[in-house]
Amino acid sequence: MYRTHHCGELSLDHLNQTVTLSGWVQKSRNKGFIIWADLRDRYGITQLVFDEERTPKTVFEQAQNLGREFVIQIEGTVIERESKNPHMTTGAIEVLVEKLSLLNASQTPPFTIEDKTDGGEELRMQYRYLDIRRNPVKEKLIFRSQVAMTVRNYLSKAGFIEVETPYLIKSTPEGARDFVVPSRMNEGQFYALPQSPQTFKQLLMVGGMDKYFQIVKCFRDEDLRADRQPEFTQIDCEMAFVEQEDILNQFEGLTQALLQTIKGIEPKAFPRISYEEAMRKYGNDKPDIRFGMTFAELNDLAQGKGFGVFDSQALIVGIAVPDAAEMSRKEIDALIDWVKRPQIGANGLIWVKCNADGSYKSSVDKFFNEADLAAWAQRCEAKAGDLLLVLSGAVNSTRTQMSALRMELAERLGLRNPNEFAPLWVTDFPLLEWDEESRRYHAMHHPFTAPKPEHKELLKTDPGAVKANAYDLVLNGNEIGGGSIRIHDQQLQSEMFDLLGFSKEEAQAQFGFLMNAFQYGAPPHGGIAFGLDRLVAILGGEETIRDFIAFPKNNSGRDVMIDAPAPLDAQQLHELALQSTAPPKE
Amino acid sequence: MYRTHHCGELSLDHLNQTVTLSGWVQKSRNKGFIIWADLRDRYGITQLVFDEERTPKTVFEQAQNLGREFVIQIEGTVIERESKNPHMTTGAIEVLVEKLSLLNASQTPPFTIEDKTDGGEELRMQYRYLDIRRNPVKEKLIFRSQVAMTVRNYLSKAGFIEVETPYLIKSTPEGARDFVVPSRMNEGQFYALPQSPQTFKQLLMVGGMDKYFQIVKCFRDEDLRADRQPEFTQIDCEMAFVEQEDILNQFEGLTQALLQTIKGIEPKAFPRISYEEAMRKYGNDKPDIRFGMTFAELNDLAQGKGFGVFDSQALIVGIAVPDAAEMSRKEIDALIDWVKRPQIGANGLIWVKCNADGSYKSSVDKFFNEADLAAWAQRCEAKAGDLLLVLSGAVNSTRTQMSALRMELAERLGLRNPNEFAPLWVTDFPLLEWDEESRRYHAMHHPFTAPKPEHKELLKTDPGAVKANAYDLVLNGNEIGGGSIRIHDQQLQSEMFDLLGFSKEEAQAQFGFLMNAFQYGAPPHGGIAFGLDRLVAILGGEETIRDFIAFPKNNSGRDVMIDAPAPLDAQQLHELALQSTAPPKE
Repeated sequence: MYRTHHCGELSLDHLNQTVTLSGWVQKSRNKGFIIWADLRDRYGITQLVFDEERTPKTVFEQAQNLGREFVIQIEGTVIERESKNPHMTTGAIEVLVEKLSLLNASQTPPFTIEDKTDGGEELRMQYRYLDIRRNPVKEKLIFRSQVAMTVRNYLSKAGFIEVETPYLIKSTPEGARDFVVPSRMNEGQFYALPQSPQTFKQLLMVGGMDKYFQIVKCFRDEDLRADRQPEFTQIDCEMAFVEQEDILNQFEGLTQALLQTIKGIEPKAFPRISYEEAMRKYGNDKPDIRFGMTFAELNDLAQGKGFGVFDSQALIVGIAVPDAAEMSRKEIDALIDWVKRPQIGANGLIWVKCNADGSYKSSVDKFFNEADLAAWAQRCEAKAGDLLLVLSGAVNSTRTQMSALRMELAERLGLRNPNEFAPLWVTDFPLLEWDEESRRYHAMHHPFTAPKPEHKELLKTDPGAVKANAYDLVLNGNEIGGGSIRIHDQQLQSEMFDLLGFSKEEAQAQFGFLMNAFQYGAPPHGGIAFGLDRLVAILGGEETIRDFIAFPKNNSGRDVMIDAPAPLDAQQLHELALQSTAPPKE
Repeated sequence: MYRTHHCGELSLDHLNQTVTLSGWVQKSRNKGFIIWADLRDRYGITQLVFDEERTPKTVFEQAQNLGREFVIQIEGTVIERESKNPHMTTGAIEVLVEKLSLLNASQTPPFTIEDKTDGGEELRMQYRYLDIRRNPVKEKLIFRSQVAMTVRNYLSKAGFIEVETPYLIKSTPEGARDFVVPSRMNEGQFYALPQSPQTFKQLLMVGGMDKYFQIVKCFRDEDLRADRQPEFTQIDCEMAFVEQEDILNQFEGLTQALLQTIKGIEPKAFPRISYEEAMRKYGNDKPDIRFGMTFAELNDLAQGKGFGVFDSQALIVGIAVPDAAEMSRKEIDALIDWVKRPQIGANGLIWVKCNADGSYKSSVDKFFNEADLAAWAQRCEAKAGDLLLVLSGAVNSTRTQMSALRMELAERLGLRNPNEFAPLWVTDFPLLEWDEESRRYHAMHHPFTAPKPEHKELLKTDPGAVKANAYDLVLNGNEIGGGSIRIHDQQLQSEMFDLLGFSKEEAQAQFGFLMNAFQYGAPPHGGIAFGLDRLVAILGGEETIRDFIAFPKNNSGRDVMIDAPAPLDAQQLHELALQSTAPPKE
């Protein structure tokens, strides 16, 4: 037996007991006549002591050669420490070592195995197995597994069945992003890896499995934006015989259970706002509502007062930055520069200080009097001491700019507290969006999303105005889940494919099996999918997902630890009936 | 709201309540003035009644047009049935329908949605979404999810962390069976899909994550034997700072928990036998021990008695078939023909009847007297009334033949009771097996398996005799799990690669990252993996796995429902920098 205890549990309760421990040497201090070493395993650190007088001579000699990350097994007696460390579970004791066995030596690791390491991102990824030894990474992986177990337990208790859908499927129409897999047994033919189990979960609904979930890997072969992975994990769910309301309630329950179990947060009903309201109030369909600064539209108050810049614009929108009236001219100028950067693209920024004494001072005093500015302040729900910031321009771009400014200010003012959780539902998304380039409608969600029943007729006359029974769950400014009620009527589905520009043949080739299935009694159904990587990161109070993934890939989709992807040898390609047309690498 | 209750719950307790139900029309009977329909959902069946007098006229008319598998929603009153069906949960009531809404019509399904269907395998696979509506398939999928949850709960409670390892990895040396995935972002390069997460779980051990598990899809692109799938699911586990004994105990605990939770079987210690003993007693390294008929070696008793057939053979082995002495000459001849078939390949079969009166009658009476036969019977642990069957020949082939005969007899005698569960551990597998064709050793398990510590020296002198710390968990004649203690010493691993015929360069190219990891303090570790598909099938009392998989592939690796794999269009191939060399299909 390699251990009687682990390195995180011994205390004064174990005094004078003989124990066996195994683990890694975190560090050691050699005082000549006495050597201390920190022994580490997954559970914690226990201090070992080797003492010239009390430790057998051969063991003492061995102890002098213990390097960092050596793997050892020791037997010894739990004794009380002279100087205790109250910050460690095991800080009151140490183990006086009597036997020592070297299980494995170690080269000096390329970076320190400490909470704050000296290793850069690339090096840590290359030696990910060492990085995982560090508490911050190890704890994130453990945290992830706890979140997944909580999800599974909640959904199982609610009657959901976890069904494994296939990974080797068929390439879909958005196939440009599919990873494909050549089949050796079916020469010249390919499987595709799923971008999501969407069609399979709908087929399960047709199959009567009315509450389905799966925690499942999905795949997308696309240029990776920062913090995206070519393989990612979804909590994929679907229900039959439900309306939107049933789904929102069910998965609000799941999210509340997560917040409660993982974060100890008492359940509270989630706010719900429509997509239109989200865009109007936050300029964003995934608003961070941990803080205010909601948008106020000032057109009626600010136009026709002789300020030409405003008069010609479609939208004038302001926010009240809390307690920022004291901001210096220099700071404000920096903000103006910030919004004028090409990434944001605003033409300028109007400011109004709501002074503590009730007076106003603005960058547009020439055009607006105190009463005007007071009306703006009231519309923005500003209080004395706040700073109003106002942007104007075309509706969509101005909202986007103001949203970016709002988030930036929240960041600077420390309003994005990672330990606060502000979930909300965004509902009533448009069914379609117009793509200027291809001159046709695209499904905003996916082609199976149902229009709101009362908008069915609009599909024929004004498709762009049709709202969908589609919803996103937003947490702290991130979309953590999204879903919709699906079309279960074959006729309506076929109309949708027409609208989206699929020919009958294309629709049949790509979705024939789903359309066929719908001929045999498809029930009303809908669902949702959560991005587990993102969800776990946000619950863990972080913005980046990479450390919540055991073996992530870099921004080029490479695993630098195992050096994948890699060329195949000619024989393998030959067996797959393939030839590479890529130029040979230098 | 689509339903207030589901179709499996209403009873006399709900009498006179108004309820809303949704589901599929299983069947209906029209008596003219009264119509009964069975409404089905995932949970059961409820009888609906439409009555000329009590049902609104329009509803009654609608009811006359309800076809099989139509999806409907009804509102009605729970009333007592005149003729009750005690075999149904809902058999005491029916619902008198007041409102009916047709949610979706259905074409007549291509096979009946009944427990015993008229649909053949191929048709059922093509319309798998309809097949899943049938109880036997639906229940198997639900059963599978229960098994998986039980596994997760047990292992989580035992401190195991579920860690997701990557699906897009690097092709391995047994790469001939890898599915590969061309990368668009890394032109000319390929990922591989994992045949198992073996190296990643070992890296997790190096990373200090000392108890890992994962329920994970694995992939193998090979000619499919019956009842194999190109994608399959493993319960993959690994532990650090453990010896073989720790692993056997831990996973015996898991299997006991499964048998108890799923089957109500009280935990009992699993027998353990060595590979050698299994081969000697059962001629098989995955013996079915639900029944006896263990092998008895008769060489010393049966040779030198003038029966030339025996005298020249390496092995003479017998089994006692219980209560089969009465078998007719014709039946015995049929058995002899059975073992002589080319699939078995025996030259003949000797029989001895242990008559009820204590006398013996055999096919070799000319050479053996009653005392000889009595000694055989004693060695075979036969009782009066049993039939001895004896084969002879080369050791391995004779054992294989006798094993096949033993299983066939058990099948014929009804000794393979699917509701009895007889697990056992088979241990001490040989580390290597000699391959005549390639004239070198292959790893019997895989190249990371550790030799028994006391056999390390043998590696240099007699590799074929080295036993490994490798073990299989066998249940009812199926290997449901297998694993080993791994090599954690870099030097020993490198010796193993030498023995297996890997050049330094090959070993470095294929396993470099694992060998590198081992330089930084790899702990002693080992693990096991269970085949979930097989495990679930056996626990479900069945021999074939296909119906325990929601969307299985056929023996050519095809999903006939979605028609995958399929050719890619030229544009997709071009983007992947690939050309197909497969001849175009007719």
